Amino acid sequence: MISNDILPGLHDIRAAHNRIHTLIHRTPILNSSSLNRITGCELFFKCENFQRAGAFKYRGVNNAIIQLVSRSKIDAVATHSSGNHAGALALASSNFGIKCYVVMPDNSPQIKIDAVKEYGAEIVVCQPTLQAREDGLKEVIEKTGATFIHPYNNFHIIAGQGTAALEILEDMKSIDVIIAPVGGGGLLSGTAIAAKSIKHDILVFGAEPKGADDAFRSMQEKRIMPSVNPKTIADGLLTSLGSLTFKAISDNVDEILTVSEDSIRKAMLFIWERMKLVVEPSGCVPLAAVLGHRNYFINKKVAIILSGGNADIKTIISL
Amino acid sequence: MISNDILPGLHDIRAAHNRIHTLIHRTPILNSSSLNRITGCELFFKCENFQRAGAFKYRGVNNAIIQLVSRSKIDAVATHSSGNHAGALALASSNFGIKCYVVMPDNSPQIKIDAVKEYGAEIVVCQPTLQAREDGLKEVIEKTGATFIHPYNNFHIIAGQGTAALEILEDMKSIDVIIAPVGGGGLLSGTAIAAKSIKHDILVFGAEPKGADDAFRSMQEKRIMPSVNPKTIADGLLTSLGSLTFKAISDNVDEILTVSEDSIRKAMLFIWERMKLVVEPSGCVPLAAVLGHRNYFINKKVAIILSGGNADIKTIISL
Repeated sequence: MISNDILPGLHDIRAAHNRIHTLIHRTPILNSSSLNRITGCELFFKCENFQRAGAFKYRGVNNAIIQLVSRSKIDAVATHSSGNHAGALALASSNFGIKCYVVMPDNSPQIKIDAVKEYGAEIVVCQPTLQAREDGLKEVIEKTGATFIHPYNNFHIIAGQGTAALEILEDMKSIDVIIAPVGGGGLLSGTAIAAKSIKHDILVFGAEPKGADDAFRSMQEKRIMPSVNPKTIADGLLTSLGSLTFKAISDNVDEILTVSEDSIRKAMLFIWERMKLVVEPSGCVPLAAVLGHRNYFINKKVAIILSGGNADIKTIISL
Repeated sequence: MISNDILPGLHDIRAAHNRIHTLIHRTPILNSSSLNRITGCELFFKCENFQRAGAFKYRGVNNAIIQLVSRSKIDAVATHSSGNHAGALALASSNFGIKCYVVMPDNSPQIKIDAVKEYGAEIVVCQPTLQAREDGLKEVIEKTGATFIHPYNNFHIIAGQGTAALEILEDMKSIDVIIAPVGGGGLLSGTAIAAKSIKHDILVFGAEPKGADDAFRSMQEKRIMPSVNPKTIADGLLTSLGSLTFKAISDNVDEILTVSEDSIRKAMLFIWERMKLVVEPSGCVPLAAVLGHRNYFINKKVAIILSGGNADIKTIISL
């Protein structure tokens, strides 16, 4: 059992990659000459929108489930999530023949509810408050004995998410900067640990909506400052840092760059129109940060993690 | 000078590829396990939405311009087009330092007008009728001496468009079926000539909206039956076959499969949501044909040309 305050290191991230690499897609890195022209830097987009279940989350959950399965017989896993962690856990557990319970708030995006159902997980609907989610989860665990897999404040999840940066730096050794979006901080933590361990002088930035800027404020105040009523179209970035991700980010991330809602929309339009990629709003936040802080990036080789592609097209396209 | 009724052969398509391969992107071929499950066949998507200028059209125009430039000094080219041919010609001619004039109807999609402008071509706006377009073009040519490059009924354009199928069959020798959308027929002609010459028993289908089914009717009647007031969301497929493309398709295409507007919307939703790719409605017509004619494709390896990605996101997303 790993203690609750220990962070994974590069060794753990490499071990995670060895464990999961046959289960995940090695996603491509794409670029766009028009975006390079516009930003004045060289951008490399790691396409986790093409990852299985449509987001980087599939890396972490597979790493976590394999750890559980290898230690003891597991019948069921559970989580509360309105988003991509739910879908990824549902798909991964079904591949391992493990039952999966997801407590989802009743205002979750339809595309994410549909995905969880399609992957065969059992959904327990609750009110859209953290209290209701935690109560619902507690009840599910008491009734079923399922093992809780936290969406980000978990050693194995963080190690799994770090494998995206590992792949980036295997494919592109000359990268100067990596930017990942930050919500609960699992992806940014894993990214920063991997990147700084592999290349000491690399810069790692987190990109965060101003309307959910708990990571930015937490870094300023040097303690966890959770979001109160966060509001942003980047629905994957509403959560606040946990103890582990706060520590990982404090120790390894150079700066959190915040962006406006308008700049997220603009970045999304660029990615959809210029790159022809469907990326959900949360995944467009790093490009918004580049567009809004150009002087940080001029003439640099910048890797951006396009974290997911589960945009609810039906509701945003007038079909 | 090539006579007006001669079609390119495989040799010409290979020569076109040699000519243009350093100027175009070799676009990737992607697949989707969920779409394979749904359709019961193995689908391979040739991503011409990632092509420069956002569509396969860039292949043909480069081949045509290189031919012109190699024969004599050319100052300017011209065309009439409301769509991707205009954008591709504008970009390619600017790369060759040649002036480009495009006669565009005043109801052209904004994204395509913007692209033509951005690539530095001169736009002459006209009424949205074929007569106005042809009159506008005639006037431009008389005034400027520009050389007209027809969007599809042109030997070099057809040869250039055939290079996408050439790449497909280089990358995936075991393909059983290729489907391309059909509007004016340049892409389908080049595809069919290349595919049937390389692999005699391959099946080649054209996919066409029922609301613009001139190719389907022309094959039935064995003569050119132009569309009258065609209507479809697949705005790239409103044009009718020309003499050359009619001949190429009559001689080489196994069948034209027609699809409803609703099935185009459904296919587009699949491609955007499942594959995370932005593909314009015209490029989704082949998948609509597979979904609507499943018995043709069961257990086959099917290559689909995703012809372009210039969807007008601003108007279809509520940003």
